[in-house]
Amino acid sequence: MSIQQDYDPATASPERLGIGMRLSVHPHCDAFEEAIVGALADVADAGLGAELVVETDEVSTYVGALSEPAEERLAAFAVALIAAAYRRCGEGHVVAHLLFSRGCPGEVTCNPEKVGLPTPAPIHLEATGIPAVAQWSLYPLLDGSSKGGDHMAHIEAAIESAKARGIAASANHYATKLTGDLGEVVSTAVDAWTQVGAVVPHVVTHLSISVASPSVAAAKEGTTR
Amino acid sequence: MSIQQDYDPATASPERLGIGMRLSVHPHCDAFEEAIVGALADVADAGLGAELVVETDEVSTYVGALSEPAEERLAAFAVALIAAAYRRCGEGHVVAHLLFSRGCPGEVTCNPEKVGLPTPAPIHLEATGIPAVAQWSLYPLLDGSSKGGDHMAHIEAAIESAKARGIAASANHYATKLTGDLGEVVSTAVDAWTQVGAVVPHVVTHLSISVASPSVAAAKEGTTR
Repeated sequence: MSIQQDYDPATASPERLGIGMRLSVHPHCDAFEEAIVGALADVADAGLGAELVVETDEVSTYVGALSEPAEERLAAFAVALIAAAYRRCGEGHVVAHLLFSRGCPGEVTCNPEKVGLPTPAPIHLEATGIPAVAQWSLYPLLDGSSKGGDHMAHIEAAIESAKARGIAASANHYATKLTGDLGEVVSTAVDAWTQVGAVVPHVVTHLSISVASPSVAAAKEGTTR
Repeated sequence: MSIQQDYDPATASPERLGIGMRLSVHPHCDAFEEAIVGALADVADAGLGAELVVETDEVSTYVGALSEPAEERLAAFAVALIAAAYRRCGEGHVVAHLLFSRGCPGEVTCNPEKVGLPTPAPIHLEATGIPAVAQWSLYPLLDGSSKGGDHMAHIEAAIESAKARGIAASANHYATKLTGDLGEVVSTAVDAWTQVGAVVPHVVTHLSISVASPSVAAAKEGTTR
C-alpha cells in the first residue's frame, strides 16, 4: 500500500508522506573527520535533531521528518550542519550534497491521480552570514497519466522564482546556479520543492553547495580561478 | 528549438542529445587538493578526456560527450578519476557524487511525444579491484502526456536488473544501495540510465559512491561501525 493511495489530509503526516533528505558534508580541511563528527554533535546540542530521525551510514546521512513544520526542520538541520562544519574547518572550504524527497517512499507504487496534496508555507531561516554557491536540480516525477502537465514547466517556474528572490539563478549544464547566503540558497531550493509537491505527488531536488571555495576567493582577489 | 523536437536518428549525436555528467570527487586525506588536481591530470594523461568536454567550476566538474560510445566514455572517465583520487589519497577514503543526464539540455522545452530514441548497448569497463558502496537514484522525467507510463515501473525494473547483476541492490531511503567493484557499480547505474533513455526522452541518475570507507573497514574487522 502506498502513501499516495491512501492520502488523506486529515491524517497525513510528514512521515507518511515520506518527507526527508539525504546529505553528505565534505569539509576540505586536514581535520575533516573531527569537523564532521563535531558538526553533527553541534547540531544535536542545538536541539535541531528534534522531531527528526537521523541515521548516518557509510555513504551519507538520512534525515526524516516526524512532524510539522517538516520542510523547515529539515532545511534548518542542513544549514546548521554545513555552518558548523565550516566553523570547525577554520572557516574553510566545505562542500555538501543534499537530496530532498517527498512522496513514494521506499519502492512502493504511487498513484499519480491523487490530488489534494499539502501546500506548506514558505520556510523561514535566519541568514547565516556565510556566502554560498550551489548547483541545483529539481525533478518533478510525473507519470504518463498525471495531471501535472509538463515537467519542464515546473522546473522553469522554479527557476523564475529563484531569480525573483535575487538568488541570481543562472543556467549550468543539468543544474541551475544559486548564489547567496547559505540559508537563502537552501530555502530557495526547499520552497521550490514543496511548491511542486503541492501538484506532483513525487518530487525530488538535489543541491550541491560550496562554501569558502578557494576558487571563489581567488576570483574576488582579482586573480584567475 | 529543443533537441527532442528535431530528433533524427540519422543526425543525432551525443552532444545534440545532451548526454553528459557532473561529478564531484572528495578525497578524505590530508593532501586532498593535490589528490584532486593530480587525479584530473592522471585521467588526462591516460587519454580518457578524448572526445569529452571537461569544465571544472567552483562546485563540480561538467563532462559532456562529443561522440560515441558516449556513455562508455563518461563512465570510464568517472571510474578512472575516482580510482586515481583513491590511489593519490594513499588508498584512502574517497566519496564521489555523480549526475548523469540525457535529453532536454539547458532550459529548453522537450517534446515527450517523440520516440525512436537511441538504445546504446551495455557498456564494458575493466574491473578496478576497488570495492565500492553507492547510493543510487534514477529519475525518469515523464510528462503528463508521455507514453512512458509509470515512472516507478522504470525505477523498479532498473533495481531488478541491478539485483540480477549481483550488485546486491537493497533499498535505502530515496536511494538503492549498490555494492561491488567500482567499475561494476558505475556500469550498473549507467546501463539503467541509458535503458530508460530509450523510452523516456529525459532521464537523470545520481550516484553517491564511497570507497575505502573507515566504517566499512571497521565492520570487516568485526568491530562496530
